[in-house]
Formats: sequence, C-alpha cells, structure tokens
Amino acid sequence: MKNVKVIIWGLGAMGGGMADLLLKKKGVDIVGVAGRGAKIGKSMYDYIQTERGDRPDVLIGAPEDVIKEGAADVVLCCTDSFVKTAFDRLRFVLERKINVVSSAEEMAYPKAQSPQEAAELDRIAKENGVSIVGTGINPGLIMDLLVVTMTGCCEEVEHIVSRRVNSLSPFGPAVMEEQGIGITKEEFLDGVKTGKLSGHVGFHESIHMIADAIGWDVEKVTQSMDPIMTDVDRKSPYGFAKAGNVAGCAMKGQGYVDGELKIEMDHPQQIEPEQVGVQTGDYVIIKGTPNINMVNSPEVPGGIGTIAMCVNMIPHIINARPGLHTMIDLPVPRVIMGDMRDMICEEAKIVK
Amino acid sequence: MKNVKVIIWGLGAMGGGMADLLLKKKGVDIVGVAGRGAKIGKSMYDYIQTERGDRPDVLIGAPEDVIKEGAADVVLCCTDSFVKTAFDRLRFVLERKINVVSSAEEMAYPKAQSPQEAAELDRIAKENGVSIVGTGINPGLIMDLLVVTMTGCCEEVEHIVSRRVNSLSPFGPAVMEEQGIGITKEEFLDGVKTGKLSGHVGFHESIHMIADAIGWDVEKVTQSMDPIMTDVDRKSPYGFAKAGNVAGCAMKGQGYVDGELKIEMDHPQQIEPEQVGVQTGDYVIIKGTPNINMVNSPEVPGGIGTIAMCVNMIPHIINARPGLHTMIDLPVPRVIMGDMRDMICEEAKIVK
Repeated sequence: MKNVKVIIWGLGAMGGGMADLLLKKKGVDIVGVAGRGAKIGKSMYDYIQTERGDRPDVLIGAPEDVIKEGAADVVLCCTDSFVKTAFDRLRFVLERKINVVSSAEEMAYPKAQSPQEAAELDRIAKENGVSIVGTGINPGLIMDLLVVTMTGCCEEVEHIVSRRVNSLSPFGPAVMEEQGIGITKEEFLDGVKTGKLSGHVGFHESIHMIADAIGWDVEKVTQSMDPIMTDVDRKSPYGFAKAGNVAGCAMKGQGYVDGELKIEMDHPQQIEPEQVGVQTGDYVIIKGTPNINMVNSPEVPGGIGTIAMCVNMIPHIINARPGLHTMIDLPVPRVIMGDMRDMICEEAKIVK
Repeated sequence: MKNVKVIIWGLGAMGGGMADLLLKKKGVDIVGVAGRGAKIGKSMYDYIQTERGDRPDVLIGAPEDVIKEGAADVVLCCTDSFVKTAFDRLRFVLERKINVVSSAEEMAYPKAQSPQEAAELDRIAKENGVSIVGTGINPGLIMDLLVVTMTGCCEEVEHIVSRRVNSLSPFGPAVMEEQGIGITKEEFLDGVKTGKLSGHVGFHESIHMIADAIGWDVEKVTQSMDPIMTDVDRKSPYGFAKAGNVAGCAMKGQGYVDGELKIEMDHPQQIEPEQVGVQTGDYVIIKGTPNINMVNSPEVPGGIGTIAMCVNMIPHIINARPGLHTMIDLPVPRVIMGDMRDMICEEAKIVK
C-alpha cells in the first residue's frame, strides 16, 4: 500500500505542529501545504520546527493549486474556528473527493449551532464518497468524548460536570489577545459585550455532543465569561498581567434538559496558574450510578493535544463511511506508534 | 420501530443485573432468558431485584427453546469467562442470526489468547450477517479502552501503566473463593500453582488491545499473582480475612515490545481496603508527549460497571457491520438515558 498522503491547509501553530508530528511518523507523507499571502511559494520547512535535511521540499501553494482530486487521502484543515467561516473551504476539499479532518472548534459538533451547514457538509461528503470530522483536544476529547466514554460504565446519569482548569502560558500573542490577558476589568467586560474577546469556543458543541450521545434532549445552552483578576504580577512567554489586571478568562456553560441544569462546563484559563496555587487539570464529575470522579492533572496541554488528536484521527476518517462524522460515531482516537498504513483499509484508500 | 428485543443467557449476578437495568430503560424488552438446571421453567423475576408488577412474565428456558432465529436483536451472553468455554454457546447464537454481547473477559480481545476461535467467530458472524463483541468494566474499559482513548491526545507514547486498585467487598462467595480471601499464604501459593485461584482474567486481552490499537508489536505478556496479607481482621459481607491471612490478590501484568517493558498492568484487589488506608481508584499513567496522569477515585465498581457496559453496547453491536468486533473498533460506550430505539439504525434491526 502506498504511504498515506496528507495535505495541510493552514500552516499556523496548529497546522505547523501537525506537519512536525507527521514527519516523525511512518507510512505517511505530507504531499502539499495550502496557504495564502506571503507564504505562497515558500518552503513548508521555513514555517515548522523540523529541519528539512534531505527530505524533498514541500512548497506552500494556493488551495486551488494544491488540493486536487486524487492528490491526497486527507486534508487537515486548520484555518478556522467556526463552521460558517470554514464552510466554503471544507466544501472545496470534499468536492475534490478528499477526506477532511478539521481543527475548527465548532466542527467538533457542527449541528449544535449550524445544523443546515452540517447537513450540507454531510450531503456533499456522501455525494463525493468521502468523509469529514472535526476534532481537537477541546472540543473533541476532554470536555465531551471523555465524558461520554465514562458514562459508558454508568447505569444511570443524573448530572454532569466537565471542568478544565488550564494554563495559557504556552500560548502565543493571538491567544493572549483573544483571552484578554493583561487588560483591565473594564476593558475585559467591554470586550465581552462587543464580542472582541472570543474566549473558549466549544461549549455548545461539547454539551450537544454529550446530550445527543446519551439521549438527553437539550433545550437550552447558556454560557458566561468572567475575568480572572490577579493579585500578583504574572508573566508568561507571551503574556503579562499586572497585579489588579486580567490574568485569564473563566468560562462556564450550562445545558438544560426538561428545565433542569444537567450538564455544566467549567473552564477557567489563565497564565501562570501555579503562581497563585491553582492546580491545573481535566475533571469528569458524573453524578450517577456509579458516580465518576476523575481527574487528569496537570491538564493535557491544548496545543499538543489538538495537534495529536487531528493527526491521530487520520486513519479513522479515511476508513469511515462517506459523510459527516463526529467523535461519538467513530472509534476512539489513539496514538500512532506503528506504520500508519497498518491502520488503513485498502478499499478506503484514495491514493492507491 | 419495534422495541429492541433482548435475550439474556445466564441469569447470575451479571445477567440478573442486566435484566434489572434493561427493565428501567425505554424502547427495549427482555423477550427471553436462557438458563439451565433448576432455573428452567421458573420466572426471571424469581432471580432478579425488580418486582414483576404487572409486566408480562418471562420464563427461563433451555437455550435451544429460547434462542431462535428472529427471536431477538441481541443475546447478552453471561455464561463464561474464557473464549474456549464460551465458544460453542456464542456460535449457537450467531448461527441463529442474532447479535451477541458477551461478558466473558477473554472475549474483550479474543485474538489475544485464542486467535483461531476469534477468526472462526468472525467468519460465523459474517456468514450469518450479525456481529459480536465482548465487553465489561475490565477488560473492556478501565485498563484498556480508557488507556487507548487517552493516548489519542498524545503525539508519542513511551510507556504505559494501567492501575486498578479496587475493593472486593461488594462481591459474593464465588469471588471470595476465586481470589483466595481468608486463606493462608501457603494455601494461596498452592492455589496459584494448581490454578485453583483464577484471580483477574484479562491482562493478555488488555495488553494486546492497547498494543494493537496504537501499533506496538507485543512479543511477550507475563503476569504474576501475589497474596495481599492483612495485619488486621477484615470483614466484608461475604468475606472474612483474619489478621495474618489473605485479604486479597495483587496481580501484575507486563507487555514487552522489542525486548522492552512497555505496558504494565497493576491490579490489587482486596476486601475492605479502607480499613488499612488503601485508597481505591482507576489510574492511567502514560509517559509520553504529553504525559497523562489520570485517576478516577474511588474505582468504578466492577459489578455495576460490567452490567452497564454490556447493556450500553447493545445499540452499537446491533448497528455494527457483520463480524467480530472489539471495543477499539466500535464507537465509545455511553449511558442510555433516552429511548434505546433512537440509537438503532433501522436497516440493522433484526426484529422489525
């Protein structure tokens, strides 16, 4: 069997990390990178950690020049966070009869907020005989798939709390800005009001994924966003919060079933949590038969986790039946320590 | 769509628990119970917790009288721990064109120790257009599927420790005997030598499941079994260990890849661990990128967990393509809080 052929669309922090990871794996080749602007024509190796060495070069090209029928088994789309902005790009790939793994947060469960676009992507994928899934560390695993999995050993579930307490210190300037690091309380509240601060994208997706998986009919999802003020100066590689200013963003989400609060999401993110004694971790707390009281501490880092999840889902999405998939209808993700081709069904391979 | 129709084969602690659970669920009926000996002709309700009330009675019958083509969508087989002893019964069901969920520990990954029987079950299932899976709390989730899932957010994995520290106190006389509760050290060591003490069944299965999932080629699996001696008298509902005698059984398993110890299983089971300050829990400890350091404490109780896992996998095995499946090729288990029919694909349903 030929190596698995991958195209990466969007060589930012996530796409670049996926390139680095793929270059360490067996049985898989990066056959193209789609980008825009000044990156076009440049070598992929100018934008990633891995040295080119004696590998053949991969030049970044415009999407229409790189993504062509028969060019690859899968495109990793790392260009967007939202279904509506990603839609045209995803359709573009599917219409070229190539499978897609999308890192867009909303694509982890697109029907939560964009049911029409989700139905349309499903239709287009089926028409073209390929499949598409959105994944990442969160949404994609920590606050949803892992929760669903743990309900699997329960006879009944009454209430779910999913909590992710994480550090923003490893992240770059864009995340510092989106989360409001270093600004004043007033600026933060204003940023929430105007929508300038995005915070975490994914509560609607995680809540609907859990609810649909276990058979709860969620009638309402709410969420809130509060500043985490710091009493001490905190400094991370790309962020600085003076004492009295914002060091992070505490988001909470709520899913209601029959008028009752049944699913709670609690996701405080901040720089340098250790400095103020905050222990980071991923928590699954289920009130049910039996209760589940699970923690992974420290938390799975967001960047590495998303990079790994997208790469690790490549075999599953190549093997999947045509259509739009989600993490709850595919087999569980798993690290790829062997030859990626050993995980691929011959008949599902595009580049034979 | 008609309700999902279930037959239970073996109405012991596990099968009986599944009956109780199914009676609480929507969209599913128990249409038959297969048993043997004195149970035949008796009401199912004589052997389970749930009161019959105004439900139609279900009489326990001989397997050949109960398990007939078109009689059910799935049979829950709760009769065995081992593939070789379960084989004829599983074949019997598959040849009657009914799907199977087996609680036999070795069926969680039958090719680990019985590759021929596994291949044969796969062939028979496919020939008859139905599917079969083995599951339970462990093997089935805690020491294998959960580990695999957490590797899904890893770029690389170097070493895995799966630890389940659990209490045997809820279990009955049979488990007390299998685990050597209350006997002397000499009796325990003798029981290990003669094979009279079975301890935990599942390390081969869990190790091979993890290794196959992530692409490690396990060349050797070893395991050991040691007595947990108690310094104090310990008493559980069905067990008693005098100070100086055996209060539990500590099993360890090892999986080797390229001569290196890569997967460790650590599973000490005892009555009344709280009495000696032992905190029970389920641990997933992965050395990799990133590290995973997860604990669910206290542990998922074995009995409830296995009952829930088997029932919760019913929709997945009805929907699955024909053949032998394992937990790593089906979607994740999940509690069933809605109508079970909403989780079933119409075309996969046997009893239309």
